[in-house]
Amino acid sequence: MNVSILNIGDELLIGQVVNTNAARMAQMLNAAGMEVVCTSVIGDNRDDIVASLQAMLASSDAVLMTGGLGPTKDDITKHVLCDFFGGTLVENEEALANVRRLFECLHYEVTPLNRQQAWVPDCCTVLNNSRGTAPGMWFVQHDTGKVVVSLPGVPYEMEGLMVDEVVPRLRAHFQTSYVLHKNILVQGIGESFLSDLVEPWEKALPSSIRLAYLPQAGMVKLRLTARGDDREVLERQISDALSGFYPLAGQYVVGEDFETLAEAVASCFTQRGLTLATAESCTGGTIASRLTALAGASAYFRGGVVAYSNEVKECALGVSHETLLRHGAVSEETVREMAEGVRQRLEADYGVATSGIAGPTGGTADKPVGTVWMAVATPQGVTTRVKQFGNDRQRVIERATNEVMSMLLHALAEN
Amino acid sequence: MNVSILNIGDELLIGQVVNTNAARMAQMLNAAGMEVVCTSVIGDNRDDIVASLQAMLASSDAVLMTGGLGPTKDDITKHVLCDFFGGTLVENEEALANVRRLFECLHYEVTPLNRQQAWVPDCCTVLNNSRGTAPGMWFVQHDTGKVVVSLPGVPYEMEGLMVDEVVPRLRAHFQTSYVLHKNILVQGIGESFLSDLVEPWEKALPSSIRLAYLPQAGMVKLRLTARGDDREVLERQISDALSGFYPLAGQYVVGEDFETLAEAVASCFTQRGLTLATAESCTGGTIASRLTALAGASAYFRGGVVAYSNEVKECALGVSHETLLRHGAVSEETVREMAEGVRQRLEADYGVATSGIAGPTGGTADKPVGTVWMAVATPQGVTTRVKQFGNDRQRVIERATNEVMSMLLHALAEN
Repeated sequence: MNVSILNIGDELLIGQVVNTNAARMAQMLNAAGMEVVCTSVIGDNRDDIVASLQAMLASSDAVLMTGGLGPTKDDITKHVLCDFFGGTLVENEEALANVRRLFECLHYEVTPLNRQQAWVPDCCTVLNNSRGTAPGMWFVQHDTGKVVVSLPGVPYEMEGLMVDEVVPRLRAHFQTSYVLHKNILVQGIGESFLSDLVEPWEKALPSSIRLAYLPQAGMVKLRLTARGDDREVLERQISDALSGFYPLAGQYVVGEDFETLAEAVASCFTQRGLTLATAESCTGGTIASRLTALAGASAYFRGGVVAYSNEVKECALGVSHETLLRHGAVSEETVREMAEGVRQRLEADYGVATSGIAGPTGGTADKPVGTVWMAVATPQGVTTRVKQFGNDRQRVIERATNEVMSMLLHALAEN
Repeated sequence: MNVSILNIGDELLIGQVVNTNAARMAQMLNAAGMEVVCTSVIGDNRDDIVASLQAMLASSDAVLMTGGLGPTKDDITKHVLCDFFGGTLVENEEALANVRRLFECLHYEVTPLNRQQAWVPDCCTVLNNSRGTAPGMWFVQHDTGKVVVSLPGVPYEMEGLMVDEVVPRLRAHFQTSYVLHKNILVQGIGESFLSDLVEPWEKALPSSIRLAYLPQAGMVKLRLTARGDDREVLERQISDALSGFYPLAGQYVVGEDFETLAEAVASCFTQRGLTLATAESCTGGTIASRLTALAGASAYFRGGVVAYSNEVKECALGVSHETLLRHGAVSEETVREMAEGVRQRLEADYGVATSGIAGPTGGTADKPVGTVWMAVATPQGVTTRVKQFGNDRQRVIERATNEVMSMLLHALAEN
């Protein structure tokens, strides 16, 4: 069962807003066993909407649209869909009651403009939106049985309607096959080397399994996707595929079923009841913010120090003045003392540290821009590593963050 | 001049990766005076790529593609484009030298698979990609003069090629007119109130100037865009427009030509020679990472403490045990002591602090999920604020980060 996603909004076309709706909708559809074949963004323009709808209906079973449902003049989605399906706009009682309820909460009066939100095409099923004034709309093409759904563009309204109405209705309307995903996080080997290494395995995969390489800064995520009617068969195929992978490239695997290194770190620490603290110089809080972006971080993450200046490295982490003088802030000795310092001072089982030159200035002949020292302090001792991450500031920060998380996962595996 | 963007990648279609490339490319094209009419995402599938290309070429002057240029089997963009434009793949010397150079840096050997990255259609202009192994490709349709560009999907490689090659070439090929942008960052007044306040000014703007309101959490960015053939005329028009704006709303202006609050903070602190330290609980390092993402942060940013656990709030920031016991971690008293504590301990002029419940769990009737206390400590004293940022974890962190930067800018303006 194929779905296309059509997001409508000028703010998306000028790059003012990143289109997170498409990703979120795709995640939900995939989890429910539906394949997204295309997502498009267009402006609030009648001809473009009609042309996109026609093209998408030609190649997919359902088109899910967001946006263009506001009360102002530039919002035209409802009118275009009404004409497209040959209907007439009528006032919907339930939708009007919902608008009234929402405005009562805000102590605002319902103006004629607001009231227009309750007008819907008489040729659709209204999907009640308790989170906002614009209702969702569900259309079925009579001759083909294909479905067009229109949803508000506000992410949390869209998401609520997807969960409550759209996904269950799509599953009922179409009879969907199973889709299983399996991620393998690999670190310490480039995409092309990995591909060479596992080539015989890849060639022998059954046709029901698709393999994708998803490289990120300093790591590669392999995704296996199995699709079919029998869930048990798919699970066996995935498990067989995995047991063929490990003998070839098992030493590079940092985890399965995680989307990110931060998830793998969170899982390891939480499962083993260990705690972590971070001491960041050049990564400037990025490691901590990645870890705390995930719910439940407080179970293992004690906290961290962003030691941007040398004084903070001394006073907050206990790095010795002599070490800084003799070896400099970007050195094995400093990063070692930072990791061990934060581990002890924040009373954590593990400590990680970074110190480097993110650039674009500050490099020397000895320590060019992109040089980053990293350390992991464990109850058993400290391991350090130095890397050259190039001369793009954002990328140096990103790669150092990933590298130190990977070092941490390796240290956990060894201890 | 109209552009369509076509992003290729299964990882985008299953929602594993949010499509930031489309937004970033749209921003860059817009800044150069080119209009994006459609962006689409499809998978690594020959028929879909050809169909999308044909549809987009029918309605736009140029199609910019990303993705599908890796060396692995699922990457087919290069082969599809080669056939589409009727060419043959040949090894490109410059591209091969680039692959060799990149692998030498890593002390890896160039395998036959890597070497395939240097094969390009003989019907395109190769855009050298110094940041990665996959070169960009520039095709021109002979009969129409329309352009198709293929770029790697790795964001920083795409961005580098857009800046170095694609935007300048598009400007030259299509002879676009001049476009000047001017940003005004406004803070402390809502979008609709601002719009009312400056209405007479807005109505009197010349037709060559377009005004956009770009609201973000805690601020509004106004963007003036002037378009025309004579650069000097445009500059005069922008400057005239500015001098009409200030008498009406000058007191809300935080700065000109900043894209983000972090840039405004960096500029204020650097210009005034002041220093800053951060104490973050619920924002978990996000404030620090935003500030240190900008080059030159070490000029004013001393560092910070991510005080996720109560023990760290006590030991690293000096929050009193009694305060935590009596008022809890999410309280005015705690956040006040955090801000003042980090200011003193890290010897900074200003300190900011956050403590809240990012969710999804941890809320109570008194302090529901989304409650965040924020503080700014200055040499003159501490100001605090509490806000309710809703129940989406990422959004709570994002809004608290922006809000505390706004508070900081306010405090700077007053002192």
